[in-house]
Amino acid sequence: MNRDDCLALDAKDTLAPLRDEFDLPEKLIYLDGNSLGPLPHRVCARIEHLVKQEWGADLIKSWNQHDWINLPLTVGEKIAPLVGAAPGQVLCADSTSINLFKVLASACSLSNDRTVILSSDDNFPTDLYMAQGLAELSGKFELKLVRRDELPGALDDSVAVLLLTEVDFRSGLRFDMQSITKAAHDVGSLVVWDLSHSTGAIPVQLDQCDVDFAVGCGYKFLNGGPGAPAYLYVAERHQRNVNQPLSGWMGHARPFDFVSTYEPRAGIARFASGTPGILGLSSLDAALDLWHNIDVESVQAKSVSLANVVKDFLGNDPAFSAMAMIGPGPGHQGGSQVSLRHKHAYAIVQALIEVDVIGDFREPDIVRLGLCPLYLSHLDVFDAMQRLREVLTSEIYLEPGFSERQFVT
Amino acid sequence: MNRDDCLALDAKDTLAPLRDEFDLPEKLIYLDGNSLGPLPHRVCARIEHLVKQEWGADLIKSWNQHDWINLPLTVGEKIAPLVGAAPGQVLCADSTSINLFKVLASACSLSNDRTVILSSDDNFPTDLYMAQGLAELSGKFELKLVRRDELPGALDDSVAVLLLTEVDFRSGLRFDMQSITKAAHDVGSLVVWDLSHSTGAIPVQLDQCDVDFAVGCGYKFLNGGPGAPAYLYVAERHQRNVNQPLSGWMGHARPFDFVSTYEPRAGIARFASGTPGILGLSSLDAALDLWHNIDVESVQAKSVSLANVVKDFLGNDPAFSAMAMIGPGPGHQGGSQVSLRHKHAYAIVQALIEVDVIGDFREPDIVRLGLCPLYLSHLDVFDAMQRLREVLTSEIYLEPGFSERQFVT
Repeated sequence: MNRDDCLALDAKDTLAPLRDEFDLPEKLIYLDGNSLGPLPHRVCARIEHLVKQEWGADLIKSWNQHDWINLPLTVGEKIAPLVGAAPGQVLCADSTSINLFKVLASACSLSNDRTVILSSDDNFPTDLYMAQGLAELSGKFELKLVRRDELPGALDDSVAVLLLTEVDFRSGLRFDMQSITKAAHDVGSLVVWDLSHSTGAIPVQLDQCDVDFAVGCGYKFLNGGPGAPAYLYVAERHQRNVNQPLSGWMGHARPFDFVSTYEPRAGIARFASGTPGILGLSSLDAALDLWHNIDVESVQAKSVSLANVVKDFLGNDPAFSAMAMIGPGPGHQGGSQVSLRHKHAYAIVQALIEVDVIGDFREPDIVRLGLCPLYLSHLDVFDAMQRLREVLTSEIYLEPGFSERQFVT
Repeated sequence: MNRDDCLALDAKDTLAPLRDEFDLPEKLIYLDGNSLGPLPHRVCARIEHLVKQEWGADLIKSWNQHDWINLPLTVGEKIAPLVGAAPGQVLCADSTSINLFKVLASACSLSNDRTVILSSDDNFPTDLYMAQGLAELSGKFELKLVRRDELPGALDDSVAVLLLTEVDFRSGLRFDMQSITKAAHDVGSLVVWDLSHSTGAIPVQLDQCDVDFAVGCGYKFLNGGPGAPAYLYVAERHQRNVNQPLSGWMGHARPFDFVSTYEPRAGIARFASGTPGILGLSSLDAALDLWHNIDVESVQAKSVSLANVVKDFLGNDPAFSAMAMIGPGPGHQGGSQVSLRHKHAYAIVQALIEVDVIGDFREPDIVRLGLCPLYLSHLDVFDAMQRLREVLTSEIYLEPGFSERQFVT
């Protein structure tokens, strides 16, 4: 596969015009949108309006006038079609961690005498940490971690809730949501899915898979900005029956009556807690408007096509012989990323930054390349792989400095 | 007291130059900064930099390069001197409700066999709702509500935690933090203070009062923007000993090692949960820079002086005869607000908006006027009272439309 092949693929790409929606630095090839999505132009305009007009000029009146009060619901409804959720089941607020606590505790409140929260030992750590916090606080539940291959055997009638992340943040490996949800239901367990690496990257069908609860992230493939609010999904059938312990005033039936006893609002709104962060919500709200008339199936198809460029280099170019792909890559079995193992992975990611390619390092030895079809072309991926090739052949990553660790998210 | 008296007071006001720091609409007199503080000019510049440079151009690198990762701590340290906290005890993240859950659960984890969370029945509702959620989830604790005057008698050795808001959102009445904290400690209880209506308005001395835990709001007197992140305070002596159940990855000792078992970070950082909302944090961070070289004592002194203008109208002008002040007004016993009772309070607040005075309605019959000394002059308050006088004497508030209820925060 050469440059011309990539140009030909780009010429046929119906998503290509979306690149103009994003403010990306010239020359930079950004393969880290699965960690922090880039800035959509429309967000700039929205934030300026929010700050100067809504906050600055209209002040407190904006809670009604600009409908700030309903943003958690309206943003939730924009996310809903991306995850196959009928209206009234998605709310946008707080962080993924906090939302996970809400839905996991809600699921546990339906558990009767079951006491096990089951998860895979490679689940995204904050999910496990929040589950540990919940288990300890409840004094009733215990978190049980098993390897992925042990999950089927571990699903039994002790399991109150199965807690899984659909797409693994390291390998991109994807669980089969439909069959695993069914397996859990078959033994009477409920399921919580974390969709942080799914939403906006791969088709998700929460209603169709009969999922009970889910959470997901606003700052990756949804491009909502750094630390954008997250979302939660609660199947309509569960909304009335659960106890949601982070029961703040925004989830109250009549928050501005200021009564002293909690009474949950009807529907998904009861899963709100405190006052919503309007800057983050507005940013995400504007970013979600990009998804008008885009179906996630075509986004996924382009991910597969972009990944073929990477696979072509890996399969045919001896410069990549010390690098092995882990996980399946994008497609039916994988999320929108390619994970490449190399013993100098950290230093390689640092060296790539020097040549204007931003990827991500993940412990212990993974170069993680996010393939985000809204703004990446086949030529971008080709050029990134050419630069990676130079980094590998020159061994520049062995120079002092590149292996010095910093926080990376 | 006449216009000239107010002008003379303004001429001597050392805080008067701060008015130029705020972007407030011309003609508008904004008496609702205790609900949503207005926009500081410097926030506009910061948000523009954040969006275009930090997010747009520097992208994921900004977690290190612009130190996003430490914003919860650095913003916390800017709040600390406003509440009399030595370094290392304040963290800014999440909403007040979520932070309340964190510190209340932490306090409860130190309770040994005590099972009562005691609060006043007029506490801000979200605090009570979150406490109810925690009590139910724990299966161990119960929330007990008593009238303010019953609190001293209700403090006994069953009480694990006393949970109070220092300044009442309706009346502005202020608890004596020092003596009540001591009374709680005398019976072996811990104390959680909600400082939402205190911070940036009245002097608070958390360390000096030997307070255990506190939370507060970023969008009122701190002017951090709509739904700005809140903060929490945990006295250094408790930080190592508690269980904080919302134990997300940002509170982990080594979040980027991605290990499966939670291990709290040292110090106040362990009270972080999910990924912090950088837009809200940056806005609040910039707004807090206004407080360089301002001491809260002089802010409070000006509140008292502004309230004297209101009191002068109420005491001397027969147009206000149907209006009664509740609570003490600003000073040693009250927060930075004046609460005026009138049976048409809601309609009066609406009618005031028509004449460019924004106050707040609080159930059942309170016109609440926030007196924020950073941007209000004595003349502003005088003019607002003149306009209120006209509303009252004209009885325009009885016209259709003014009494129609909407959400107001």
